[in-house]
Amino acid sequence: MDVHDLSAYMAHVGAAARSASTRMAAASTAAKNEALVALARLLRDNGPTLAEANARDLTAAAAAGLDGPMLDRLKLGDKVIATVAEGCEQIAAMPDPIGEILNLRRRPSGISVGQMRVPLGVFGMIYESRPNVTIEAASLAIKSGNAAILRGGSEALHSNVALWKLVQAALLEAGLPAEAVQLIETTDRAAVGKLITMPESVDVIIPRGGKGLIERISAEARVPVIKHLDGNCHTYVDAEVDLDMALVVTENAKTQKYSPCNATESLLVHAAQAEAFLPRIAAVFAAKGVEVRGCARTLAAVAGVPGLKTAAATEQDWGEEYLGPIISARVVDSLDEAIAHINRHGSHHTDAILTTHHPSAMRFLREVDSASVMVNASTRFADGFEYGLGAEIGISTDKFHARGPVGLDGLTSLKYVVLGQGEIRT
Amino acid sequence: MDVHDLSAYMAHVGAAARSASTRMAAASTAAKNEALVALARLLRDNGPTLAEANARDLTAAAAAGLDGPMLDRLKLGDKVIATVAEGCEQIAAMPDPIGEILNLRRRPSGISVGQMRVPLGVFGMIYESRPNVTIEAASLAIKSGNAAILRGGSEALHSNVALWKLVQAALLEAGLPAEAVQLIETTDRAAVGKLITMPESVDVIIPRGGKGLIERISAEARVPVIKHLDGNCHTYVDAEVDLDMALVVTENAKTQKYSPCNATESLLVHAAQAEAFLPRIAAVFAAKGVEVRGCARTLAAVAGVPGLKTAAATEQDWGEEYLGPIISARVVDSLDEAIAHINRHGSHHTDAILTTHHPSAMRFLREVDSASVMVNASTRFADGFEYGLGAEIGISTDKFHARGPVGLDGLTSLKYVVLGQGEIRT
Repeated sequence: MDVHDLSAYMAHVGAAARSASTRMAAASTAAKNEALVALARLLRDNGPTLAEANARDLTAAAAAGLDGPMLDRLKLGDKVIATVAEGCEQIAAMPDPIGEILNLRRRPSGISVGQMRVPLGVFGMIYESRPNVTIEAASLAIKSGNAAILRGGSEALHSNVALWKLVQAALLEAGLPAEAVQLIETTDRAAVGKLITMPESVDVIIPRGGKGLIERISAEARVPVIKHLDGNCHTYVDAEVDLDMALVVTENAKTQKYSPCNATESLLVHAAQAEAFLPRIAAVFAAKGVEVRGCARTLAAVAGVPGLKTAAATEQDWGEEYLGPIISARVVDSLDEAIAHINRHGSHHTDAILTTHHPSAMRFLREVDSASVMVNASTRFADGFEYGLGAEIGISTDKFHARGPVGLDGLTSLKYVVLGQGEIRT
Repeated sequence: MDVHDLSAYMAHVGAAARSASTRMAAASTAAKNEALVALARLLRDNGPTLAEANARDLTAAAAAGLDGPMLDRLKLGDKVIATVAEGCEQIAAMPDPIGEILNLRRRPSGISVGQMRVPLGVFGMIYESRPNVTIEAASLAIKSGNAAILRGGSEALHSNVALWKLVQAALLEAGLPAEAVQLIETTDRAAVGKLITMPESVDVIIPRGGKGLIERISAEARVPVIKHLDGNCHTYVDAEVDLDMALVVTENAKTQKYSPCNATESLLVHAAQAEAFLPRIAAVFAAKGVEVRGCARTLAAVAGVPGLKTAAATEQDWGEEYLGPIISARVVDSLDEAIAHINRHGSHHTDAILTTHHPSAMRFLREVDSASVMVNASTRFADGFEYGLGAEIGISTDKFHARGPVGLDGLTSLKYVVLGQGEIRT
């Protein structure tokens, strides 16, 4: 297929995906698992081929002046390959979500009504530099009986093509259509514009990447988008709390890693604990070089902590996702104020309360309007693997369809099944 | 509020809905049920007021030359009021979906992870002449803890306002915010354009009405839309079948009522049964004045049926939703051909197989890509009440979020809850 006639190329890719999705929806669990196990084997057996393709990308990226973290993400080393191969085997070992029938119940008319889990159809995945996403998306597509159209970063094209060839070989080995997973083989940026406006061929788009990319896709897409934009997560230390626990959990939530979207970016402390808690956590932050951008009461409470970098928080700080060693901090006078602050300034991603007071915990769970709400746990747990989904195709901060970490079930839909013995409507 | 400054008016309505939605999400089950029971009582106690408002709409509609069926739909008679009042009580008696926690399971890290059902927030409902939809939408909003913005047909405005005043009185009686249900009080058509493009205030739009209305809304909306466009439903008579049962079910599916979206519009018959089945069902159609638009083999099989209106089916007939006494009919040579025909020409609404052959039934359930798939039952059962949802806000033929009849659960979302004892991520 000539990738230079973009309209014809994308139409061809879309039609092939739609056609393959019908076969994938009817594929047996055994065939899907066989493809996943074969893919794991092919990944392990083709280290040199993958390394060669990856080297081409890395050389070009270095020549183009890409920075260190970007090159790190692009690198497809032995450890990354071992991890994605193991991921394929883990997904093969999971129960098949497709065909499951929920809530089958007899109705007064005599019919039995239930809901059968079926694939969504075709999903488009748009991602940036990390080539391992190619295998993660492909393996989730295979297990969930969907077809996928993948669009990776242009800087990773050779790596992605090499990985994709293995995916197609694994599909064919299991008797499944190679077109169940397709990779867009052109770096033409207009291909993304086509992919997100083909409702006849694509049922949902899943973008992973920077906020700019995701905002543009959401604004222009003509199909549903499973996405999250910001991770401005809060940890709230309540009036009644185990301070030692709060110290350990808050430290973990902020400092275990700075870059993930589920790291805490804002700390709220009830006034009753401000004097006791803030100097202790501030000492931890000082030791780790974390700057505190606080309200006036916070700054007063931490004034005596040696070596702590501080600044007065501006209104903008309450909405900021720093993704680095900075945290905003505010003293609140009540649980109500904490909940209102989070619902107003947060990004509806993940927020935690640390408390020993049961009614506070229950109100926080119910009233904080976020995809994940936690009691006495680090916000860093908001993750498909930690939640037991087995894998994660993305995270949704929308409320429609899927919310929070999205695993296999998020790639499915429930249709009604009705089993009768000749019943009629009267 | 001045309805003539439309932008300011709609912004005010939207902000009030968003604010009320927070209070509704936290409302107790008791308060919500109290409002529903009060609403039922107020409906029964205010017959004369409602009749007077309705008379104004009916007089204006008759003067404007609206036809009989349109006037019928507009009429808010004692029987309609009794039915919607009973509906409110039925919804009050249903379990509260909000706050339910599903699948709470302990993870290896020590945290427990589950999913809590919460309201979507604010839904906009756009509907045409029937004023009873005002009460159906309001009662579902109250029970599901959402706020609703209602936009009824301009010809029903006086009736809708009178009903809405009772809804607000019931909400206030139960200590809930009157703004939880708002009705757009202007007949300015531009209000719809505003309502569907306010993502900051409206989370989802549910249109009910003609195909033209729904297509326009879907194309222009900037929030998700729960909708269905066509109901081109199929009944397929398989090679192995109880012919007497097939006759009764097919007659019911086509002729019990012609106008509903779940009435069968197309009949597929396996070649092995064409000679035995088609003349018998054609005789039923002849007696009821149903025209058969058939393929050549169908027309040959029914040629001897006295009084039957027939025509040769065109390609267009396979996709047609007649909503009247016409049915398209085709002889197929296999189950595969039947499934392929339905997936190609159908509207993914409701399709049924009539068979005694278990493998055919299972393949049909799995491979027909429709919101409802049935074995040995009339397609007319595709309905929220018949499925046990207790009520129906609409029907979705999309796969995303909700599929098929949409009840209370379709107005909710699942957020993750994490219960810990100070766990951290390592």
